[in-house]
Amino acid sequence: MQRYFIPSDNWQDHHVTIKGQDAHHLMRVLRSDVGDQVICNDSEGRAAICEINAFANKEVHLKIIEWLEEENELPIHVTIAQGLPKGDKIDFVLQKGTELGAQAFIPFSSQRSVVKWDDKKGKKKHERFSKIVKEASEQSHRNRIPKVHLPMNLTKLIEMGQSFDIKIYAYEEEAKVEKFHSFSTIVRKLKKGQSLLILIGPEGGFAEEEVAMLNKNGFTSVRLGPRILRTETAALYALASISYQFEELGCS
Amino acid sequence: MQRYFIPSDNWQDHHVTIKGQDAHHLMRVLRSDVGDQVICNDSEGRAAICEINAFANKEVHLKIIEWLEEENELPIHVTIAQGLPKGDKIDFVLQKGTELGAQAFIPFSSQRSVVKWDDKKGKKKHERFSKIVKEASEQSHRNRIPKVHLPMNLTKLIEMGQSFDIKIYAYEEEAKVEKFHSFSTIVRKLKKGQSLLILIGPEGGFAEEEVAMLNKNGFTSVRLGPRILRTETAALYALASISYQFEELGCS
Repeated sequence: MQRYFIPSDNWQDHHVTIKGQDAHHLMRVLRSDVGDQVICNDSEGRAAICEINAFANKEVHLKIIEWLEEENELPIHVTIAQGLPKGDKIDFVLQKGTELGAQAFIPFSSQRSVVKWDDKKGKKKHERFSKIVKEASEQSHRNRIPKVHLPMNLTKLIEMGQSFDIKIYAYEEEAKVEKFHSFSTIVRKLKKGQSLLILIGPEGGFAEEEVAMLNKNGFTSVRLGPRILRTETAALYALASISYQFEELGCS
Repeated sequence: MQRYFIPSDNWQDHHVTIKGQDAHHLMRVLRSDVGDQVICNDSEGRAAICEINAFANKEVHLKIIEWLEEENELPIHVTIAQGLPKGDKIDFVLQKGTELGAQAFIPFSSQRSVVKWDDKKGKKKHERFSKIVKEASEQSHRNRIPKVHLPMNLTKLIEMGQSFDIKIYAYEEEAKVEKFHSFSTIVRKLKKGQSLLILIGPEGGFAEEEVAMLNKNGFTSVRLGPRILRTETAALYALASISYQFEELGCS
């Protein structure tokens, strides 16, 4: 069933109003009729089956039929901080990361970032990113849309990281040494409801001074398996493993 | 260090010859000098540090310096059978699947495949696929290049599946029911060295008759977490989870 995220203002008692692009999608793309049903998610993460009552003035009016008891959110609040990668790889990280359950994304620039965004470009990109995560949330049946932060630098990111329960960074060199920090030792320490910040460097990885700064500020380096992953694959490995541990193995 | 996969014919006692595109890459792209070192992988999965001795006639001659004792291969032999997806998503599955340790890929067509390839197109695509997995293997420090099969239909695939220790298929409906086959129950049954065939349907999933045929032939349906994954994300979830289980959790 088609799913939409509806802002709080558009919920009234037993009714929901769908406006703007979602209304256009429902009317013009899906060519829905009165009586058709969709799932509407509210901003609290709840979802309801709703039935179309009427179309009026580019809006769709729906009646709430049944609140659903579903919970498709990852039990760990994972924020992916992604070093700005080349090309449109960040789109890919946002889309796949949303499907795999990330709660938030922070694009960041660091010493070895090839890509540089000024404030204007950052803001423009940000609008597109919000669209990507909204659509991926609808498609993957998420209960919440992940938050995408405006791009920031590593210093700011480290400062922000202090509010997380656990903070780690993927370090390519970690996969090459015999005595390594396994990702699983971190994952198994996590308790449901805790927050985890995962930093993934850009293509060239982190510089030595950056690694020193991360270590000094309570970030732990981890390897994500023995193979060398591309920057845009690392976040997906981490999220899939956390889902496997908490949602499939069922340990907590 | 740069890594190349060298065919058996180009190994002679203590020497290796790099030819063709790899020689071009080493000479023209990396602008290597005599004395520079690279890693050469043989077709048995072994790797050696080799030093450049000479350049001659568009070939690079190297001396074997040291055999490496590395093992970057997933302990489970995972074959990803991917229902032909739209656009260039198959490229993505091949590249990321190689990074994440798949041993082989089988593109297949089924009832709901939108994309159709005739033999000629299949063969042309196949050449490009082989290039993608070779490059991804070099980049991710694999010991072996995954095999890419020519596209086949579901009947042929099911027949081929009979030689695998365990065979499963990702079924979207499985994520929606309360009593589901968790992927972890399958993964935890696997023993190192066993073979696993994972079928991922195309965008529209499997048709009912196909599901019946899979069940009849010993395939088990699994869910890959509670969210609905796009076809091109499913294989990555499966591979990352298997890596996490066997290479990070360290259970076998």
